[in-house]
Amino acid sequence: MAAADISSDGPESHTLRDLNEPLVDHTEGQLFLTDAFKIMMEEVLCKGTDVKHKVCEWKEPEELALLLDLELRAKGEPHDKLLQRVQDVAKYSIKTSHPRFMNQQFGGVDYHALTGRFLTEALNTNLYTYEVAPVFVLMEAEVLRGLRQLIGWTEGDGLFCPGGSASNMYAMNIARYQHFPDVKSQGLFGLPRLNIFTSEDSHYSVKKGAAFLGIGTDNVITVEVDEGGRMIPSDLDEKIKLAKSQGGVPFFVSCTAGTTVRGAFDLLDCIADVCEKHKIWMHVDAAWGGSVLFSKQHSHLIKGVHRANSVGWNPHKMLVAGLQCSALLLKDTENLLRRCHCANATYLFQQDKFYDVNLDVGDKTVQCSRKVDCLKLWLMWKAVGSNGFADRVDKSFHHARYLVAQMKKREGFQIVFEVAPAIKERMMKQGTMMVGYQPLGNKVNFFRMVVFSPLLSQKDMDFFLDEIERLGKDL
Amino acid sequence: MAAADISSDGPESHTLRDLNEPLVDHTEGQLFLTDAFKIMMEEVLCKGTDVKHKVCEWKEPEELALLLDLELRAKGEPHDKLLQRVQDVAKYSIKTSHPRFMNQQFGGVDYHALTGRFLTEALNTNLYTYEVAPVFVLMEAEVLRGLRQLIGWTEGDGLFCPGGSASNMYAMNIARYQHFPDVKSQGLFGLPRLNIFTSEDSHYSVKKGAAFLGIGTDNVITVEVDEGGRMIPSDLDEKIKLAKSQGGVPFFVSCTAGTTVRGAFDLLDCIADVCEKHKIWMHVDAAWGGSVLFSKQHSHLIKGVHRANSVGWNPHKMLVAGLQCSALLLKDTENLLRRCHCANATYLFQQDKFYDVNLDVGDKTVQCSRKVDCLKLWLMWKAVGSNGFADRVDKSFHHARYLVAQMKKREGFQIVFEVAPAIKERMMKQGTMMVGYQPLGNKVNFFRMVVFSPLLSQKDMDFFLDEIERLGKDL
Repeated sequence: MAAADISSDGPESHTLRDLNEPLVDHTEGQLFLTDAFKIMMEEVLCKGTDVKHKVCEWKEPEELALLLDLELRAKGEPHDKLLQRVQDVAKYSIKTSHPRFMNQQFGGVDYHALTGRFLTEALNTNLYTYEVAPVFVLMEAEVLRGLRQLIGWTEGDGLFCPGGSASNMYAMNIARYQHFPDVKSQGLFGLPRLNIFTSEDSHYSVKKGAAFLGIGTDNVITVEVDEGGRMIPSDLDEKIKLAKSQGGVPFFVSCTAGTTVRGAFDLLDCIADVCEKHKIWMHVDAAWGGSVLFSKQHSHLIKGVHRANSVGWNPHKMLVAGLQCSALLLKDTENLLRRCHCANATYLFQQDKFYDVNLDVGDKTVQCSRKVDCLKLWLMWKAVGSNGFADRVDKSFHHARYLVAQMKKREGFQIVFEVAPAIKERMMKQGTMMVGYQPLGNKVNFFRMVVFSPLLSQKDMDFFLDEIERLGKDL
Repeated sequence: MAAADISSDGPESHTLRDLNEPLVDHTEGQLFLTDAFKIMMEEVLCKGTDVKHKVCEWKEPEELALLLDLELRAKGEPHDKLLQRVQDVAKYSIKTSHPRFMNQQFGGVDYHALTGRFLTEALNTNLYTYEVAPVFVLMEAEVLRGLRQLIGWTEGDGLFCPGGSASNMYAMNIARYQHFPDVKSQGLFGLPRLNIFTSEDSHYSVKKGAAFLGIGTDNVITVEVDEGGRMIPSDLDEKIKLAKSQGGVPFFVSCTAGTTVRGAFDLLDCIADVCEKHKIWMHVDAAWGGSVLFSKQHSHLIKGVHRANSVGWNPHKMLVAGLQCSALLLKDTENLLRRCHCANATYLFQQDKFYDVNLDVGDKTVQCSRKVDCLKLWLMWKAVGSNGFADRVDKSFHHARYLVAQMKKREGFQIVFEVAPAIKERMMKQGTMMVGYQPLGNKVNFFRMVVFSPLLSQKDMDFFLDEIERLGKDL
C-alpha cells in the first residue's frame, strides 16, 4: 500500500507470521519451479513434439472440468499435489508445438525464442521506462530497427502491441490523429463520417477496430478481391470516390499481406498509387505475410510495402517467436505515435529524470503495463540469423507447393460435399493432428493447412493427406 | 503458407537442408533451454532476490548498448555465445523480484505463479476457442468466477485483458454499447457528446481510453477529491447535472479503489447512489486495490463494489501473479461483452462445431490472439489458498503502518525541499533499492513506497528509512 494512506484501524483479525519473515520461502519455491520445469520438458517439449504421441487428448468440457478439479479454495495445497496439477494442465492442453498441429498460425517451437520467453517471465518487468527496463528499451528499438530495415525504411518508429488486432487499431488511431488531431481531445462528435477501406478477405480486426474506435463497422467499406484473393485497386479507387461523393472522409486503407484464409498478398504498389492520389494513410496488415521479407526468393510478394505509412507484422506467426510478438512499424519520423497516445502521467514519466526521457517509451502506447515482447525474437534472431529465418520461409513455401502437387494426384481431394466438420470431429477425438477449416465466399467449409513450423518435414505433408483420406473414408 | 495460394515460382535461390529434416534440433534446443534455466535460477531468482546483491546495475544507455551488442545479423551464433547473452540480459536488467524493489506495483515473486507463467509459455496457446485451449477456457471461467464471488456476484461475465488500461477501455466501450448499441455499426458521428466522469486522482488510462474510443479527453469530466484523495460524491452529482444542462450525455463513471499515487479508495456506496439516480454505468478501477477483498480486516475499504456494473482488477499487482494478469469483471448476464465485441469470424468461430460454441470465448474481446493469463493466478491460488492471499494483504498494511509510525519518529522525513530527483539518481547509480517518486496536486515530488511483495520483512522498512537518510544526507 502507498504508505501515506494507511491509518491504524483496529487489531489484526488473525495472527500473522513473524513480520520479519517473508511470506515466500525461496528454497521451497525454487525447488518447486525446478521440479515443474522437468515436467514441462518431458510432457510439453519431449512427448508434446513427438509424432508417436497425440496432438490432443480430447475430453468433453464437463469431464475435463472434473479431471482438473478447478475450484479455488481457502486452503493451499502441498508440493506434490501442485506438481500433479502442473502435469494435468500439460496433459490435457493442446500440444501446439507438435508437428501435426497445423490448426492455426502459431504452431511449432523454437527453443531460443522459448528461452527468451522464460527469461522475460523470470525478469517480470514492464516496458515503459528506461529506469525499470533498460535492457528492453534498447533491445526493442534495435529489433524494430531490424524489421524496418527489411521493409526498406532507414528511419521510423514503432512498438510491440498485444496482438495484430491491436496493431491494426493503433494504426487506425494514428492515421485518424494525423488527419484530425482534435479528435484526441474533442472526439468524433460533429465530424463528417470517416471511412476505412479494406478487402473482403481482410482480417476481421479491421471491423472490430473501427467499432472500438467509435468509427463504426458500417464505415468500413469493403473492396472486392480478384480470383487470387487480392484487393482490386481499381475497385478501391472507385469506392473512395463514391464515399467522397456521399460526404464521407476516406482516411485509411488497410491492405493485407497474407490473408488469413488464403494467404493472398494484395498488390501493394498499385494500392499505394491509389492512396497517394487520394492522400490516404496506407496500412499493411502483414501479420502473417511480413516474414517473407527475410526470403530473397519470396519477398517479391510484398513488393511496395515500403510505400506504406504503417505495417503490422507478427513474428509469433511464421517466425515461431511465441505468443505474443506483434510489431507495429511506422515510417513516421515526427513522433506521431507519442503525440497521439501520450497522457504525460507525472507519476511515471517525470521530466526531471537524470537520463534522456525520450527513452521512456511507455507513453507511445494506450497500455500502461506492457509486456516485454522483443527478447524472444531478439534471442532467436541472434541464434539463427536472418539467413536462418530465410531458410524457414523458403522451406514453408516448398512444403506448401509439395502438398498442392500431391493433392492434385489424389482423387478424393476435390471438395464437393460438406464433410469438413465431420472429419474435424474425428480428428480431434483421435488426436492425431489438428487442422482448421472454414468457408470462403460461396465455397463450402474446407481445410486450411498451416505449414510454416520449423519442425515440419515432407513426411508430415504425406501424413496429412493419408490422414484426411482415412478420417473421411466413409463420408 | 495456406496451401491453396502457392504456385511454383522458379528454382530455390539457395539450397535448403534435406526436406525431411526439421530445421529445429530438439536435443540441442532442450539442452540450451536447460542451461539457460540454470542461469535464470542463479542470476534472477537467487542473486536477484538476495539483499546482499544490488537491485540494479546502472549503465548509461550508450554504454549498455555496447555491452549488450544488440545488433541483429545474417548469421547465427553458437550455444556458448548465446548463453552469455542470457547471462548479460539478466545481469543488466532490473531485479524486480528483489525485496528492495519498491518502485512500482509489480515487484516481488511468487514461485507458483512463475511456474504457471513458464508453463503458459511452454504450452504457447491462444485463448480463443475450446478446441485449441480446452484447459484454459474452463480455468479462466473458474478464476473469474472466484474473483466475482469476492465482489459478491453469483453470476456475471468477464475476461482477462492485456493490462488494466485495456480493462478500463473495455468497460467504457461496453457501457457505450449498452447506452447506444448503434455506435458499433454507425460510429459516434451525429451523436450528442458522451461524458465520462472520474476523479482528479484517477489513473491516466481513463483519458487515454476516451481518446482512443473517439470520445475525446475533453469529454472526461474531472471530479474533485477530498483530503484523503477520494472522489467527492456531491461534486460528481453536480458535474453530471451540469454536463446534462450543457447538452452532454453522461454514461460512465470510473471510480478508483486504490489510486495510483496515494492508494485512496473512493466511497463506492455513495457513488453508486449517484450513478443509480442518473442511470449511469458504474465502473470501479480496482487494478491496485481489488485484492483487499481477500482480507476480512481490510475489505471494508471497497465496500459497495458489488453495486458497480464492472470492475477492473489486476492480480499482477498486490497478488504478485506476474505481468500481465488483469481481470475485467462484469455483473451483466445478458452477453453484453460478446454482443459488443463480436465479429463472428467464420474461419475461427464456426457455428457447426461438435461442441458447445459458447465455450469459444475469443469473440468477447477486440483482440484476436489472446495470451493465457489465468494459469499463473490459478496455480498460485491453489498453492496458498484464499487464506494465504489474505495474509499477504494484511501484512502489506502492517508494513505500511509500521513505516508511517517510524517516519513520524525521524526528523528528516518532512519533505520541504525538492530533493526526490537527486536522491533517486544516487539510489539508481548505487543500485541499493528502487523507489519511485512523483508529484501530487500542488505538492513537490515525493517518494511512493510500494510495500506489498510477499518477500518483504519489517527490516526492509527500516532499511528504506536509513537509506533515504543516507542518500539525502548532504542535500
